[in-house]
Amino acid sequence: MNSDQVKLVPGNSLITKTPEEGRQLAIKLARLVIKAIQPDAATRERPRPVYADDPAMLVAIGHTVAVKFATIAAANRYWNA
Amino acid sequence: MNSDQVKLVPGNSLITKTPEEGRQLAIKLARLVIKAIQPDAATRERPRPVYADDPAMLVAIGHTVAVKFATIAAANRYWNA
Amino acid sequence: MNSDQVKLVPGNSLITKTPEEGRQLAIKLARLVIKAIQPDAATRERPRPVYADDPAMLVAIGHTVAVKFATIAAANRYWNA
Amino acid sequence: MNSDQVKLVPGNSLITKTPEEGRQLAIKLARLVIKAIQPDAATRERPRPVYADDPAMLVAIGHTVAVKFATIAAANRYWNA
Amino acid sequence: MNSDQVKLVPGNSLITKTPEEGRQLAIKLARLVIKAIQPDAATRERPRPVYADDPAMLVAIGHTVAVKFATIAAANRYWNA
Amino acid sequence: MNSDQVKLVPGNSLITKTPEEGRQLAIKLARLVIKAIQPDAATRERPRPVYADDPAMLVAIGHTVAVKFATIAAANRYWNA
Repeated sequence: MNSDQVKLVPGNSLITKTPEEGRQLAIKLARLVIKAIQPDAATRERPRPVYADDPAMLVAIGHTVAVKFATIAAANRYWNA
Repeated sequence: MNSDQVKLVPGNSLITKTPEEGRQLAIKLARLVIKAIQPDAATRERPRPVYADDPAMLVAIGHTVAVKFATIAAANRYWNA
Repeated sequence: MNSDQVKLVPGNSLITKTPEEGRQLAIKLARLVIKAIQPDAATRERPRPVYADDPAMLVAIGHTVAVKFATIAAANRYWNA
Repeated sequence: MNSDQVKLVPGNSLITKTPEEGRQLAIKLARLVIKAIQPDAATRERPRPVYADDPAMLVAIGHTVAVKFATIAAANRYWNA
Repeated sequence: MNSDQVKLVPGNSLITKTPEEGRQLAIKLARLVIKAIQPDAATRERPRPVYADDPAMLVAIGHTVAVKFATIAAANRYWNA
Repeated sequence: MNSDQVKLVPGNSLITKTPEEGRQLAIKLARLVIKAIQPDAATRERPRPVYADDPAMLVAIGHTVAVKFATIAAANRYWNA
């Protein structure tokens, strides 16, 4: 697999130096999976104002980031072991 | 069980070489379970424009992929052990 | 407990030979719990067209299967240990 | 704590003999927590037809049972250790 | 941190004697976090009839209690180790 | 990474002294990820009355805090090991 094909996990690794970078990675994973499901940029971007204004949507996105971050934190043994 | 009967888990394994492939597998598992619940392709494909345009749906699919990926990541010991 | 009373977990075990069978079990558990909550078949089947046509419902069912599969995968030590 | 006060966990234990009983316990925990939040039986039962007819509700209940079952299965080391 | 400042976790501990008390704690944590997000009692209590009558809401609260209980059960090693 | 860039995890650590502080951190993480997704303060604050009045929203926020707290509790080995 060459780097051109890596589209879902930046750097193809769950390991990060710190919790902060782990959370940044969780947000990126959330965005990249949306991109994979809906590869057409115009269609994908169209509902963007909806995300921004809809509090339910912001909470839902925050929730899915929480689940991804749980996986990343486990992969990094919570950065404290 | 012969390979014709394997319809829910490609390759019948949760093990992947990399996180990137792990996330690809998570997306495939999400699609294959929908296919198993609704085997009629015409019916299944009909709501496809809904997925593409509805931001809530995209977030929900991303969320279910996150849960599947958590299982795959644990199966692969987070690709770092 | 005799086999007649086993209605929620086929074979009364979470152990399966392969990931494919693990996912089949996860789908069965999802169906059997619905059956236990709503034992009247006519009532239970009535909303079936709703499931089939509603993409949000298909995604929600896929999500609950994902959580059940996580438990089954852990029970089977991810089929790789 | 005497047995009269035990209202949320039957037998005050998560340990069951089999997966089947584990799932029965998960369904009971789901019902008992609703009872604790809404102790008035008349009010609690009123929406019951809604549960029975609404497929989204059946799926949501199935999902919360799945999360409770995950905890019970872990408590019982998946009945296979 | 003195006890006046402890507002989110009663007793500032996840350890309980029994599963029953663990579930009571899970319900309390669910209530206290709502209180922290919406500290105005009048506003917070206003929607209370909605909770009581809306089956979807009861199921949703039961679900969030399930997730909190999973954490508490793990903290207590499922009360059986 | 200097402290100016740390915007998602206060103190860039999941370790807290007590469960109470762990839950405070969980609430902060929930807020900071919303801030990262919607960096415009005016837009972000606009739906605030919606959160405060909508019981479904309060429950949803409580749920996402529960998932974040699960990760933090595991990182701290449940404050009892």
